[in-house]
Amino acid sequence: MIEQSPSLLALLRQLQRVPYLASKNLYIVAQHFLDLDQQGTEQFCNALLTLKERMDKCTDCFSWKEKERGCSFCASSKRDKTVICVVETWRDLIALEKSGGYFGLYHVLGGALCPLDGIGPDDLTIKQLVTRIDRGCAEIIFAFNQTPEGEATASYISTKLKGKSLKISCLARGLPVGSSLEAMDRLTVYKALSERRPF
Amino acid sequence: MIEQSPSLLALLRQLQRVPYLASKNLYIVAQHFLDLDQQGTEQFCNALLTLKERMDKCTDCFSWKEKERGCSFCASSKRDKTVICVVETWRDLIALEKSGGYFGLYHVLGGALCPLDGIGPDDLTIKQLVTRIDRGCAEIIFAFNQTPEGEATASYISTKLKGKSLKISCLARGLPVGSSLEAMDRLTVYKALSERRPF
Repeated sequence: MIEQSPSLLALLRQLQRVPYLASKNLYIVAQHFLDLDQQGTEQFCNALLTLKERMDKCTDCFSWKEKERGCSFCASSKRDKTVICVVETWRDLIALEKSGGYFGLYHVLGGALCPLDGIGPDDLTIKQLVTRIDRGCAEIIFAFNQTPEGEATASYISTKLKGKSLKISCLARGLPVGSSLEAMDRLTVYKALSERRPF
Repeated sequence: MIEQSPSLLALLRQLQRVPYLASKNLYIVAQHFLDLDQQGTEQFCNALLTLKERMDKCTDCFSWKEKERGCSFCASSKRDKTVICVVETWRDLIALEKSGGYFGLYHVLGGALCPLDGIGPDDLTIKQLVTRIDRGCAEIIFAFNQTPEGEATASYISTKLKGKSLKISCLARGLPVGSSLEAMDRLTVYKALSERRPF
C-alpha cells in the first residue's frame, strides 16, 4: 500500500534519517504530519528553514548561536571566563546547563576520539581549544561521557596541555543520585569505592 | 542559553508537537536538524509539503492515498471486496497489512468511542461504514485495540448492524507469539483459556 504512495515514501525516507524515530514510531510520526493542516505544515517547515538561516556555531566555543547575536556564553558578562568546560557535543552542554551548577565557558569538541570510526584529533576542535587556553584560562574541566572514547579524548588533550600552568579536572564518577548499590554494575561500584571522597 | 535563541525555540516548540519526541530526544532531533545542510533541510521540507499537497483520504475507506491515484485497496482488483476490516486508525491498518494475512478491504474509523474524551459516534466514520455495508458486503472484521474503548466501539457498531445478513468477526485474543505463560498478565491468560480453540 505504501509502495504505491511516492509522496508518503519520500517523507518516510526523510524521517528515517531523524534519530529516535525507530520503525514503529515512524508511522506515528507520519500520521502526525498527514493529520497536520496546510498551515501547520508550513509553520513546521518555516521553523526548520529559519533555524538553518539564522543559526551558526560560535567560532570560539563551537556551540550553536543565533547569527545576529553574540554567543550566549562567550559574549555574556555573567559567565566566569577563566574556566572552560570541554564537552563532546552540544547536547552534553545542554545537560550541564540544565544542572544549573556551572557558570563558566564551554568548548564543544564535536565528538570524541575514536580511531576505529576514523575520528582523529583533526576531526575535533582540539587545536582551537589549545589556542583558546593559550589566550588565557585558569581551569579546564573535562566533561566527557564515561566511555573508552571519552577517556581517550581526555587523556589526549591532557598530554597536549602538559607544561601549561593550568588546573585540569574531570567530572566525578560514582553512584547516580537515587540509585541503589545492589542494582549498580560492578564497575560503577568499583569506581565509587576507589574514588571515594571525605564525608 | 536556549532562551536566547528564538529560532531554536521555535523549532523546539514545533518538535514538541510531534509524537514520540519526549523532552530528552528533543535535543537529539534538534541537533540532527542543526547539523543538516541547507540542501538536506530543503529536501525535508519539500517532502513534507509535497505530502500535504498530494495525499488525501479515500472517500470510501478513509485510508490515506495519493490524490492522483485510486485508493490502493478500494480500487485494486486484487482485493476481496466482500470483506471489510474495520480499524481505529491508519496505523492499525499498516500493522494488519504488514502481517500479510489480509486481502480484503478496510474501513478506518478515525478512532474509538470514548465518551470521557468527548468522542461520540458522529466523530467517527460509523455512518459511512453502515452505508458501505448496505451497498453490499458479506463479512466485516472488527480489528480494534484490546481496550475498553475498542470493545465499546465494536459493540456499538454491531448493534447498528443488527438484522443485516452479515458475518461479523473480531480478532482472536490470547497469548502473543513467543510469550511465556508465566510472564503474561492474569487477564490475558484468562482470555486465552476461556477462548481456547480446538487443537
